[in-house]
Amino acid sequence: MAKEKGLTPQSQDFNEWYNEVIQRAELVDYGPVRGTMVIRPYGFGLWENIQRALDDMFKATGHTNAYFPLFIPMSFFQKEAEHVEGFAPELAVVTHAGGEELEEPLAVRPTSETIIGHMWAKWVRTYRDLPQLLNQWGNVVRWELRTKPFLRTSEFLWQEGHTAHATQAEAEAEVRQMLGVYAKMSREWAAVPVWEGVKTESEKFAGAVYTTTIEAMMRDGKALQSGTSHYLGTNFAKAFDIQFQDRDQQNKYVHTTSWGLSTRMVGAVIMTHGDDKGLILPPRIAPVQVVIVPIYKSDTREQVMPAVERLAADLKAAGVRVVLDDRDQYSPGFKFNEWELKGVPLRLEIGPRDVEAGTAVLASRLGGKETVQLAEVVGQIPHKLEAFQAALYQRALEFRDSHTWEVDSFEEFKEKVEQGFVKAFHCGDKECEKQIKAETTATTRCIPFDEPEAHGSCVRCGKPSAYGKRILFAKAY
Amino acid sequence: MAKEKGLTPQSQDFNEWYNEVIQRAELVDYGPVRGTMVIRPYGFGLWENIQRALDDMFKATGHTNAYFPLFIPMSFFQKEAEHVEGFAPELAVVTHAGGEELEEPLAVRPTSETIIGHMWAKWVRTYRDLPQLLNQWGNVVRWELRTKPFLRTSEFLWQEGHTAHATQAEAEAEVRQMLGVYAKMSREWAAVPVWEGVKTESEKFAGAVYTTTIEAMMRDGKALQSGTSHYLGTNFAKAFDIQFQDRDQQNKYVHTTSWGLSTRMVGAVIMTHGDDKGLILPPRIAPVQVVIVPIYKSDTREQVMPAVERLAADLKAAGVRVVLDDRDQYSPGFKFNEWELKGVPLRLEIGPRDVEAGTAVLASRLGGKETVQLAEVVGQIPHKLEAFQAALYQRALEFRDSHTWEVDSFEEFKEKVEQGFVKAFHCGDKECEKQIKAETTATTRCIPFDEPEAHGSCVRCGKPSAYGKRILFAKAY
Ligand SMILES: [Zn+2]
Ligand SMILES: [Zn+2]
Repeated sequence: MAKEKGLTPQSQDFNEWYNEVIQRAELVDYGPVRGTMVIRPYGFGLWENIQRALDDMFKATGHTNAYFPLFIPMSFFQKEAEHVEGFAPELAVVTHAGGEELEEPLAVRPTSETIIGHMWAKWVRTYRDLPQLLNQWGNVVRWELRTKPFLRTSEFLWQEGHTAHATQAEAEAEVRQMLGVYAKMSREWAAVPVWEGVKTESEKFAGAVYTTTIEAMMRDGKALQSGTSHYLGTNFAKAFDIQFQDRDQQNKYVHTTSWGLSTRMVGAVIMTHGDDKGLILPPRIAPVQVVIVPIYKSDTREQVMPAVERLAADLKAAGVRVVLDDRDQYSPGFKFNEWELKGVPLRLEIGPRDVEAGTAVLASRLGGKETVQLAEVVGQIPHKLEAFQAALYQRALEFRDSHTWEVDSFEEFKEKVEQGFVKAFHCGDKECEKQIKAETTATTRCIPFDEPEAHGSCVRCGKPSAYGKRILFAKAY
Repeated sequence: MAKEKGLTPQSQDFNEWYNEVIQRAELVDYGPVRGTMVIRPYGFGLWENIQRALDDMFKATGHTNAYFPLFIPMSFFQKEAEHVEGFAPELAVVTHAGGEELEEPLAVRPTSETIIGHMWAKWVRTYRDLPQLLNQWGNVVRWELRTKPFLRTSEFLWQEGHTAHATQAEAEAEVRQMLGVYAKMSREWAAVPVWEGVKTESEKFAGAVYTTTIEAMMRDGKALQSGTSHYLGTNFAKAFDIQFQDRDQQNKYVHTTSWGLSTRMVGAVIMTHGDDKGLILPPRIAPVQVVIVPIYKSDTREQVMPAVERLAADLKAAGVRVVLDDRDQYSPGFKFNEWELKGVPLRLEIGPRDVEAGTAVLASRLGGKETVQLAEVVGQIPHKLEAFQAALYQRALEFRDSHTWEVDSFEEFKEKVEQGFVKAFHCGDKECEKQIKAETTATTRCIPFDEPEAHGSCVRCGKPSAYGKRILFAKAY
């Protein structure tokens, strides 16, 4: 519930603003175990709408859902050298169960490549068993030192897609296809603009040949990696011996991919769109799209309520997610603040004079009020929600573009990376990347697919650029 | 994939039949960790359809989804005496995480009453915060000694509803409402008839005041507890100090409920409907409702394929879950067996002469074939699926009723309980229940709500009956 005191302004302390808004808007709370979160109904509603959009797209591209066990024998992680190096430090380990010490400790899955690889070794026999196109919705655990709800928690919810293919080309096409699905979800549902690109070697997934990513810019100029899609080559196929007999009768290793998008995306929505009044939610995934606030005194209540109840029912019947805020104990002003805090896109205010005139006041969470005709508003709302969705995306895009700079000197790099993203040339050397991080805390975000060909000198060390184009740097969550 | 060899007949070894059918129909596989299962796409498709039906009903009754952490401090279990006694022996325990030993070991949730109680203590202040109507979809872990896929596994998927109310009456009404939702899902979607009733004291949930249950009969006459709804009184409210200020300004403890339905329901579907050829799936939750098997030789392929492809597209457009089995490497007979094993309700067979005549052969998984007009079949299929659904339920109901007996002597009890369910009088004494279990392995399943009032002597010890009606006994999974 909204407190009387306003939120800390973003410009004053963005981090504090985030911590306040997620709690006051009842998106999330802290769990009793360090680094865990409770996703409250309003926050979960956002995630459910993201899930539905993604799940539909996964199915439309031929994937089916399945479920693999939470517990993975520790020995599985040893089988892929880079994978164990990346994940071992973050594992939570079950050592006792059913009152006894286990013979082999069990890892709580941080990701499921190993256990799915183990099962594929059994299921995949010939080329007819390929491709394997699986997705799993579930929870994973990565024991992180510094946690922040939605962005980095010990346990989080996500989907992890896992596919196996007969050829490298088919697997690589899958990697790009699923990154495209993430980009589409991000842009068209979450209204969050993203760059699509490849991670540098030092930023790739532990066990991947390469990692592709969507990177979004938050309102403090920092980057949020919002979804990744990995080409795993034959690394896991060799580790788990997943071979198939091809059409040419030869036994070959499968090429695998994996791709994941998590409750982080909720964090992206909060930090891309929110303002000093609170959240601003994209209509397509907002748990509540329209709130109706009736305005009455005790002697006009009977005049107003039937009209707003009918309106709420009509909007609901039209498929709009609507709430009628008929709580008597709060003033309209209090309610306005609360629903603004909660980021509801549109608000309808209706008082006795409105009922008489057959009108209502429509207020947008992006600003502006207009008088609308009650007889027409149900038909108009879907269009207004779509317009809101488009405006929100446009606003985020403009913010991003005005906070992205091409830089060619390290001095300028250091200055601009404090405010947003920089595109610069880089030599491709890991040590040079490390040095940039040490001096600025900024990291390479990706080598963007869409960036035009260009050549120059590394922004830090001056050696020739390695990627044939500028790459993206930012401080990141 | 179907093997050439048939399934072990149910009458020969029901247990073996079950183990074979779940694997060959590709519903499930065994995970690498003892007692865990992998739910394969075909099995998960069933679960997804059950989920969707339930989730819609939960939302229609005012509940919203949320998510609470997987890890629960061990100390939480100590707070409710019966709860810890019931669950402590089954807990899986995380002792190490992030490379270090934890200060307090963490239980992997076996159920979430404790952690939700902990959060409610923070969230619930006044009567205005009530009722709390939450549901969570997720995984839980209970370390069981004897496991069987879907029926009893170390980890399983379920939903757990948790609600808190201002009054006992409201909480008890919720308990019954949600049991009713389970019964409706079971009967109308899974086509599984169930008894609704109350568990005896010795069979109730650890921490509940009482437990209500739906009990189904499998084709071997054994019972499967398929969903439970518990009235928890103020037990957890007191353990976690969940108090609210009521309208009368008094501080009171909330009354809580919890209710759960799991992937066990998939087991219920398999064992209620399956026969010696394999699964028989209820159309409303079947991942595939109709399979089309084209019948051609190499010189008639071109004649048949366009017609079946059009039919498949038309059925899909009509909202039917259809598969066109166009695999060239298998004979029609092989395909018939495989789709029968997989329990697909309806099969359409179409050869060149059918195409010429504008007909198809429609075969039902419940037996019988008929010739249908291609021009009409798309319009007919939805009705035929509904008729199949109704017939499947009717068949299960008749099986159950013909395997249920009222008995009044312990001799007859022992004889009949080998074949199905018995309704008998019981004295209500826990020791007497134990004795019955020791002698017959049968347990009390429930005190059915619908059973008429009647009085008599305990079927074992002869003391007066305690429940005012006959109660239900069976051997159970
Ligand atoms: Zn350099
Ligand atoms: Zn007795």
